[in-house]
Amino acid sequence: MSGQRDFSNRRNFLKNSIAITAGVGATLTAKTSLAQNTKAEFLEVDPWTKTQGSTFINPPYGLPSRYEKSVVRVLPSPAPTFLTGSRTPLQNLHGIITPNGLVFERHHAGVPDINPDHHQLVIHGMVDKPLILTMEDIVRFPSESRIYFLECSGNSAAELKKASGKTAQEIHGLLSCCEWTGVRLSTIFQESGIQPGALWALAEGADGAAMTRSIPMKKMMDDALLVYAQNGEMLRAEQGYPLRLFLPGYEGNMSIKWLRRIKLGAEPWQTREETSAYTDLRADGKALQFTFAMDVKSVITQPSGMMKLKSKGFYEISGIAWSGKGGIKKVEVSTNGGKSWDVATLQEPVLDKSLVRFRYPWIWDGTPGVLMSRAFDSNGDIQPSMEALLKDKSPNTFYHNNAIQPWRVAASGEITNGR
Amino acid sequence: MSGQRDFSNRRNFLKNSIAITAGVGATLTAKTSLAQNTKAEFLEVDPWTKTQGSTFINPPYGLPSRYEKSVVRVLPSPAPTFLTGSRTPLQNLHGIITPNGLVFERHHAGVPDINPDHHQLVIHGMVDKPLILTMEDIVRFPSESRIYFLECSGNSAAELKKASGKTAQEIHGLLSCCEWTGVRLSTIFQESGIQPGALWALAEGADGAAMTRSIPMKKMMDDALLVYAQNGEMLRAEQGYPLRLFLPGYEGNMSIKWLRRIKLGAEPWQTREETSAYTDLRADGKALQFTFAMDVKSVITQPSGMMKLKSKGFYEISGIAWSGKGGIKKVEVSTNGGKSWDVATLQEPVLDKSLVRFRYPWIWDGTPGVLMSRAFDSNGDIQPSMEALLKDKSPNTFYHNNAIQPWRVAASGEITNGR
Repeated sequence: MSGQRDFSNRRNFLKNSIAITAGVGATLTAKTSLAQNTKAEFLEVDPWTKTQGSTFINPPYGLPSRYEKSVVRVLPSPAPTFLTGSRTPLQNLHGIITPNGLVFERHHAGVPDINPDHHQLVIHGMVDKPLILTMEDIVRFPSESRIYFLECSGNSAAELKKASGKTAQEIHGLLSCCEWTGVRLSTIFQESGIQPGALWALAEGADGAAMTRSIPMKKMMDDALLVYAQNGEMLRAEQGYPLRLFLPGYEGNMSIKWLRRIKLGAEPWQTREETSAYTDLRADGKALQFTFAMDVKSVITQPSGMMKLKSKGFYEISGIAWSGKGGIKKVEVSTNGGKSWDVATLQEPVLDKSLVRFRYPWIWDGTPGVLMSRAFDSNGDIQPSMEALLKDKSPNTFYHNNAIQPWRVAASGEITNGR
Repeated sequence: MSGQRDFSNRRNFLKNSIAITAGVGATLTAKTSLAQNTKAEFLEVDPWTKTQGSTFINPPYGLPSRYEKSVVRVLPSPAPTFLTGSRTPLQNLHGIITPNGLVFERHHAGVPDINPDHHQLVIHGMVDKPLILTMEDIVRFPSESRIYFLECSGNSAAELKKASGKTAQEIHGLLSCCEWTGVRLSTIFQESGIQPGALWALAEGADGAAMTRSIPMKKMMDDALLVYAQNGEMLRAEQGYPLRLFLPGYEGNMSIKWLRRIKLGAEPWQTREETSAYTDLRADGKALQFTFAMDVKSVITQPSGMMKLKSKGFYEISGIAWSGKGGIKKVEVSTNGGKSWDVATLQEPVLDKSLVRFRYPWIWDGTPGVLMSRAFDSNGDIQPSMEALLKDKSPNTFYHNNAIQPWRVAASGEITNGR
């Protein structure tokens, strides 16, 4: 699974695909005797080379190039009347890291404006020694930095009924991946102690919704983090500044943002967010509760919906795969709607509960087709087709759509949602 | 080298160090019979919990919390009359990723404003088939994503003469680490072919300086990338938008930004930037040329200059280590000015030519001391003391300072540059 692929049998991408400006070769050959380090006279010298560039800091906290202004988070389409989230432009991203400015948002009562000097975390309930911790206290504990994906359990939900979105962002954009830094909950519980029988923890946010979820203590002790930083810098406000819970691989809403309180108890609390919401309705009318881990999933991001292949020839199919139940073991790609599958290359590092970038070389012959990817995880799970996923679900089910995403390629090169 | 450290013999950080608000324990105990999911009445309910938060997208391209406005790139102090760079606030960062808004800048004629639709890259000189590639051509090639550090060879330079900077940012902030995505130069040269005897490549930028460097073809074929994205999104303007060369581990100026031309030849071109600049003056009056790889180095970032330890007790010493010659094998920390050293924990993933985060638990007893770190790399090199580093150098040497950074801890807890 090396990222350095052997292209020895796929030489000459250009011959197959990329048109060189007509006559350029001849022009260049005639110029190769140019004096060393002379400007290449066959290249027009652009205006930006003839002038001094901007010399101020650009700015002290930098922003993307003005030519990238369309690469932003967007609301779902159609936008809800109450704006509660925004989506990551997956089709514009490369690698596995989501830059902080493009990490998806989901909040239940807006983004609170918390002064970190006044923020406190309480640890109480079935502990030996209740604690109140300030942010200054928390950052003094030993920390860890880990690259993990974060996905809303309602990601891709509208697709369960019918084709709803056009782009990877619209359909799957409640998904991001960052390097998170924080303190292990297991370290905090060394301080508070845990009373016998304390099998669940209640986490509560300081937002207007006082968002609450019940979390098994096993998860809290295994790998849960009190996160204060993302991609190096302090958490963004919409990501829970100054403190959030982070439960690697679990549905996003459980990683309570603006965390103010953790209470230990013997039973789950049956909060709104684990009874009326975030449960999975089955065909028999019963609902699954506490379906914590996000299932194995993948999506091709390049090319994807609303893009257009401009000519026949070589393309690198690229996408992301992830599993809340462990590591990605393999990703397969089909370019013929699932008739045959071939193994994609996984870009290292391949980390547990992180996005994994996969790549697959493809020569488009100009005929219609359907592109698909399916991921395999270390838990032994395989990403299902939509048909298989829906078999036991209610028509009103909403969460945990990890079905294969088909992208239809037209003879014109236009790519559309193949749901 | 697991990031999950065994703290079994270091339990109870709080007992040693972190003061719990007086009386809180008793208050909490009295309240543990609160009805499930009731608000914790012993915690003042802050104003942000009583109101709806902001519900617009925050904004479509997000920015840090307003409470973090001091965490920005800064100019060197004193600032030069011609502003050519800015520094990363290393002491405010966690993990290994530098967020794009805080990646250091260094440019020789300002930042050009390049329209990617008009940008072209020429491959010429001793090739079989000269190429002109548009950005659209380039992104169609197979790509790779890699986490690599980037360091200016003049980083920490002022310290060679005397203590000059106060903070990790001021002293060492010409250093960042991103996930870079691009096309291997070896893939591009499969298209152009390479003529026998072509041992060097000239890379030229499209900025007003037409920045040029000679690069051995061995490096170009080994791991050099044509980079178009950083931390997921397209390159920032000050990082070379829309295209830069990236030479993993090599001094930053060689990773030519705004790349417009690569010419292959038999000999180096002896450009300004490899003769009058970026050479290393020795004590005997001769200068070393083509000292490409950045040497093994580390710096403690927390705690570091201008911070203050507020009380005795537990602190996690944390910092970053890197080597342009391979991987970090080990980092040692001293809290007594180098009299004794102990091994720090390296946070996984430990990647070649990337920043590596190290952590070391420390109990401060309130006495003065000097904190130091020294890194060991896979090339067999050990980070030297300043005394050892300067032994054969001219007093006027400027580049490649990889000496150990001492931070002096006063009895007051104040941390200062111990150079």
